[in-house]
Amino acid sequence: MTTQQSTDQQNKPVTLVGLGPMGMALAETLLKKGHSLTVWNRSPEKADGLVAKGARRAATVADAVAASPVTIVCLTDYETMYKVLEPAAEALRGRALVNLNSGTPTEAHAAVKWFEERGAGYLDGAIMVPPFLVGEPGAVFLYSGSQSVYDQHLEPLTSLGDPRFLGDDPGLAVLYNTAMLDMMYTTLNGWLHATALVGSANVSAEKFAELALGWFMPVVVDYAGLAQQAPDLDAGNYPGTLNTLEMNLNALDHITRTSEEQGIHSEHPRLMKELAERAIAEGHSGKSYLAIYELFKKATPRP
Amino acid sequence: MTTQQSTDQQNKPVTLVGLGPMGMALAETLLKKGHSLTVWNRSPEKADGLVAKGARRAATVADAVAASPVTIVCLTDYETMYKVLEPAAEALRGRALVNLNSGTPTEAHAAVKWFEERGAGYLDGAIMVPPFLVGEPGAVFLYSGSQSVYDQHLEPLTSLGDPRFLGDDPGLAVLYNTAMLDMMYTTLNGWLHATALVGSANVSAEKFAELALGWFMPVVVDYAGLAQQAPDLDAGNYPGTLNTLEMNLNALDHITRTSEEQGIHSEHPRLMKELAERAIAEGHSGKSYLAIYELFKKATPRP
Repeated sequence: MTTQQSTDQQNKPVTLVGLGPMGMALAETLLKKGHSLTVWNRSPEKADGLVAKGARRAATVADAVAASPVTIVCLTDYETMYKVLEPAAEALRGRALVNLNSGTPTEAHAAVKWFEERGAGYLDGAIMVPPFLVGEPGAVFLYSGSQSVYDQHLEPLTSLGDPRFLGDDPGLAVLYNTAMLDMMYTTLNGWLHATALVGSANVSAEKFAELALGWFMPVVVDYAGLAQQAPDLDAGNYPGTLNTLEMNLNALDHITRTSEEQGIHSEHPRLMKELAERAIAEGHSGKSYLAIYELFKKATPRP
Repeated sequence: MTTQQSTDQQNKPVTLVGLGPMGMALAETLLKKGHSLTVWNRSPEKADGLVAKGARRAATVADAVAASPVTIVCLTDYETMYKVLEPAAEALRGRALVNLNSGTPTEAHAAVKWFEERGAGYLDGAIMVPPFLVGEPGAVFLYSGSQSVYDQHLEPLTSLGDPRFLGDDPGLAVLYNTAMLDMMYTTLNGWLHATALVGSANVSAEKFAELALGWFMPVVVDYAGLAQQAPDLDAGNYPGTLNTLEMNLNALDHITRTSEEQGIHSEHPRLMKELAERAIAEGHSGKSYLAIYELFKKATPRP
């Protein structure tokens, strides 16, 4: 009985639309975890390997959507999704759709409306790992929007990785995704630019990494230490006891001047320096560097 | 005998010029570790507390320099150092000077010449910790320039923290210092901007930190993992197997558009997006994001 039940759960039918590199990883994972999978892709031959492993290839996107109570969509963007799903409008009624393409919160909000008009439940999602990690226990998938779609279809979502429901606001999944990538790219740029700076004096990236990544960053900018300062951001509390924006500006001026003198890219440090200047001009003199947060919360002034 | 020897070593005379917050921390530490300390500061009353603890206050900067084989200078910048030390030119001859103010490699190179002309050995240095950590075992001090000054005066330098000699090029200490601060500020900005992004949807910094700093960054951008990629930077090897600049540009476009739509600062992400565009235009299409390093190694094109 227990085995039968477990098989029933695992055989829950799922439809997947979109077989790019990420879509393929999702499909392979759903098959491996025992789901009854229907797939559709603009170029149908992309499904050949999946069909050989037991997936059903739908002739039309409407057939695909009709085959399962939930359809997972993994396409390039929201516009593509609308174009692809429009012919399946009838089939969508009373069914659920989980969208995993990236975009902006505004687009996620618009999608809720689009699916509401077609009588479908909508869950927005974002995949935080590359295709080869899909299905692994640490593969975080972010979801937001309809809690009931999330709860009802948690099994296929759990098959794909580690699902996290962020809240009713459908924009949260793509917003968290965008914010974390923002932090990732900025941190990468910091490392690459710093390496270019010492590289101008023929220090190798490997040599610099010993001190910068082996000692300095894990000690001075450790992620757990930053997290401890988050309540100060929420409270707007930036006491300048250990450092002041004036001291930071002096350092940022050195970084900018050194970049110029050493003949490397200097736009990035100059922007940081101008931000510190602006923060001081806007009344944050004497506060800690975290006061830059106040500037980031506002739209960039247009010159 | 052993105790006597050890006391002799610890009593090695040192002069310190400059008693700002950092200079005070250096002086307190040198006294605590048993050095015979002579100090000089433009405002002599700053030394009152140190004199009470056994320091000698020199009447002139020339007297201060003459009192010890090595003088450690901790002033605002190189210009201030020259102005302060010019009257001590005679005393400098045959002695050693260790300079701990921050500046650029060009300024460090010029300082070598200035002290050479006055017959003094010169070691350039940079302090990587705030004043309250001076003297602790993990307090890293970077040095570069004269290896013989470093070797001869290693005892007081070791009293101050964990000294690291980076090489004969006198610009290395300030360059490493600048590069590490560059990485620190950039990483902080990434965190602050990402927090502002989710904050636009009323997500608290504390809530965001759970996922972004508690999971994403330590897993996806862990410092040890970056260090493993350093040899690829040295080799100019950026294979686009897991990600391509085109995929990165797509993400950076989302980050920029989302920042604009959510009404927060967008200059920072726009600059990152433009860098990715430029990298593709300059022939790095299909390569990994690390190819941005090639752009950073070159001076910013002037519009």
